[in-house]
Amino acid sequence: MSEPTTEHTYEIDPALAARWSPRAFSTTAELNQDLLGPAFEAARWSASSGNSQPWSFVVGFRGDDVFTMLTDSMNPGNSVWAVNASAVVASIARTHNDEGEALSHALYDLGQAVAHFSVQASANGLVVHQMGGFDATALHGSLGLDDHHAVVTLFVVGTLGDPAELSERLREREAKPRVRKPLSDFVSGSVSYP
Amino acid sequence: MSEPTTEHTYEIDPALAARWSPRAFSTTAELNQDLLGPAFEAARWSASSGNSQPWSFVVGFRGDDVFTMLTDSMNPGNSVWAVNASAVVASIARTHNDEGEALSHALYDLGQAVAHFSVQASANGLVVHQMGGFDATALHGSLGLDDHHAVVTLFVVGTLGDPAELSERLREREAKPRVRKPLSDFVSGSVSYP
Repeated sequence: MSEPTTEHTYEIDPALAARWSPRAFSTTAELNQDLLGPAFEAARWSASSGNSQPWSFVVGFRGDDVFTMLTDSMNPGNSVWAVNASAVVASIARTHNDEGEALSHALYDLGQAVAHFSVQASANGLVVHQMGGFDATALHGSLGLDDHHAVVTLFVVGTLGDPAELSERLREREAKPRVRKPLSDFVSGSVSYP
Repeated sequence: MSEPTTEHTYEIDPALAARWSPRAFSTTAELNQDLLGPAFEAARWSASSGNSQPWSFVVGFRGDDVFTMLTDSMNPGNSVWAVNASAVVASIARTHNDEGEALSHALYDLGQAVAHFSVQASANGLVVHQMGGFDATALHGSLGLDDHHAVVTLFVVGTLGDPAELSERLREREAKPRVRKPLSDFVSGSVSYP
């Protein structure tokens, strides 16, 4: 195992390179259905097992009831900054089919759809921050989901804000360089990456 | 539930719009470590729960032993066309941590990383086709994985080939229009999409 690094070995698409998960969101920037439309359209055209499209999303905008319900379910360490974002989305997987059989690729495919959403949002100058820290059981009930569906992540969407408005602890985290394992740590076979 | 459609309600990034999963691959086009580098770099910079990066990949190129091992594990209905591709990759999730606890977001995060790979490949003029139809248990053994890791998908990468070289049945599938559920079927909350 080598040390994680900020270095890029290969150049990547600007929308992918620009994607990151900030905590400082503009408290005045607003989003609406049409401004989020391209990101949901991108999620829509994601790949899935047998084109099963086992994903759905519930979206709220800052100030409305859905936004409040979703952000209220977050762990306090997340909601403290997430409430500033312009929109919040619950990502939901269809985990079982009508016969009650587990759909083994549902989470994987939902991840693909949210990645598409994030890349398109990045291409549109928006920032997205996903989280697993929320009360999924409570939210499952509030959203009226059946036992063939699960809330997997929440993510907020908005415009980058001023880190100076974050607490000192969050400001420090925000300023940390983004790091990843080197390619050699996770790609093997007929290649030998640095 | 409305009928699936080919229509786009919103315009999306060209690399996302161009992405699809063909079966006709050029049997002469070749890939190598550097040509696949940007796609793995894109996967590397994907988001993950607590930056855990629970993904790894094993890659083979047409004609080498890894390629043969991976394509041999595919269901015949997949390998019949997949063997023409330039490269094949096994996507592997780290499903449990060192304490043996399940990593609940591993599959979701692996899906995100593969989506990033696919989008970057699309931006580079390559095509990717993922599949779940392979002998995951046999491959888990051949790859020497422990029980904290699972092979989740295989995917082939290459250059679009001539559909005329496919069997009649596959040629018909290849020519079918790509369809998806309308936005209204899977996005709800404070929006009302068509």
